[in-house]
Amino acid sequence: MVEIRFVKGHGTQNDFVLLPDEPATLDLTTSRVKALCDRASGIGADGVLRVVPTSSVGDVVDQADVAPWFMDHRNADGSLPQMCGNGVRVFVRYLLEAGLATGPTVTVATRGGPREVTVDGGTYAVDMGEAALLAGTDVPLVTVGTRTWPAVGVHVPNPHAVVFVDDLGDAGRLLDAPVVTPRTVFPDGVNVEFVVPLATDRVAMRVFERGVGETRSCGTGACAAALDDAPRAVSVDVPGGSVVVTERVDGHLILSGPAVIVARGALDPNWWASR
Amino acid sequence: MVEIRFVKGHGTQNDFVLLPDEPATLDLTTSRVKALCDRASGIGADGVLRVVPTSSVGDVVDQADVAPWFMDHRNADGSLPQMCGNGVRVFVRYLLEAGLATGPTVTVATRGGPREVTVDGGTYAVDMGEAALLAGTDVPLVTVGTRTWPAVGVHVPNPHAVVFVDDLGDAGRLLDAPVVTPRTVFPDGVNVEFVVPLATDRVAMRVFERGVGETRSCGTGACAAALDDAPRAVSVDVPGGSVVVTERVDGHLILSGPAVIVARGALDPNWWASR
Repeated sequence: MVEIRFVKGHGTQNDFVLLPDEPATLDLTTSRVKALCDRASGIGADGVLRVVPTSSVGDVVDQADVAPWFMDHRNADGSLPQMCGNGVRVFVRYLLEAGLATGPTVTVATRGGPREVTVDGGTYAVDMGEAALLAGTDVPLVTVGTRTWPAVGVHVPNPHAVVFVDDLGDAGRLLDAPVVTPRTVFPDGVNVEFVVPLATDRVAMRVFERGVGETRSCGTGACAAALDDAPRAVSVDVPGGSVVVTERVDGHLILSGPAVIVARGALDPNWWASR
Repeated sequence: MVEIRFVKGHGTQNDFVLLPDEPATLDLTTSRVKALCDRASGIGADGVLRVVPTSSVGDVVDQADVAPWFMDHRNADGSLPQMCGNGVRVFVRYLLEAGLATGPTVTVATRGGPREVTVDGGTYAVDMGEAALLAGTDVPLVTVGTRTWPAVGVHVPNPHAVVFVDDLGDAGRLLDAPVVTPRTVFPDGVNVEFVVPLATDRVAMRVFERGVGETRSCGTGACAAALDDAPRAVSVDVPGGSVVVTERVDGHLILSGPAVIVARGALDPNWWASR
């Protein structure tokens, strides 16, 4: 049987199983993604990042000239996100350590288009592109239990509803998705950030990710939470650490933060074959 | 730097990071146990099982003649359990695969004394010793939210309060430890099982483990839940699978179930050094 290698890593505790797949031969089904991400019966992660040559994947082959490696990102439920600001930092750290790329700037192919990551010591700065405030005049309302707050709608480009609260505990345990109304404002669902301003250049944030639940960090969510204070650099404290969001003169948001590799290994071939 | 190898495995989804430590040189601090078991920033597990020669550990050296390998089990919070019926199955599977023991019967040193495990195909049968009903006349009461049930107290030898319910959902989400009164009955805390009898030889069970929370399986809890139907063999369906509890003629309970190895690898040396 072929040995399936893996790497476990995280960016501010948004964690991933990386699957190096240089020959582009891995049959990564939805059930295998779910099995890998299951925290008791698998390795456990928020998502999987397959490392595969861009030229081998039809949907992104047009990015191959600028980004030789494609971050084939799957959420724990098997769905296909456009981009992940925490995952791409870990992805680039892996590419550099494996000798598959040279720094300080590495461009990664993603479903959301090529993304440039610049490495400076242990900090990885990701060009997240532009964020846009929600169009229209409807103010989204976020409800948790008996409390309702008005929210700021932001696309990064995935949808976010940012709620400013007095205390991060105001959102309670966040076991269920907050209810966001009117539903027509975010027809495909929405990520919800609860934000406490700490200073003009620092906020604290909790996030409930669409289709995932509360997570310890969310890169696009940090960008959404910081937008109110742009263009100055804003530190965003998340449960899993801290990132910095800066607005560049061209309007692009730059997300800077750490990338950690925890372990490397191989999946048990029998386990993999039975998934 | 020394490479720290690990194995990730589970028994009915009670999951463990095994650390092979044949030279008995690993400095396994509480903070490192917590870091390894953290599900977002580490590997993630319910506990750590260090594989170490029994002769090298003073507290258990008297077991070395019958059990050359000691299961140095740490809970995710760093505490020291006596025994673990799910963990010891994974431990024995590792010993056999690593060539450190030969089957079909392997005796493992534990803090609760030597435990014999017999392997038959993919099934691992663990001698869990004798269970005893709680002495005294006080009936323990288990309360979750607004509901209260009488419980059966069982020592396996760790303490259990077994509640028979109509539906496993009756216990709700079990985010907090059930309240067990009078507190004098279980002065060191207690594990709580919610059990639905399905047939004379089958029960379904959820468990809230003392100091851990709700888990997908608990070996001693399965023994406690099955005691009512002993001596016949009882299948215990837990959220992570199914185990069978049998009472031997000498009164010992035998817990039979699977053991799964998911992955093998090495910890990142920088990550380990910084824990």
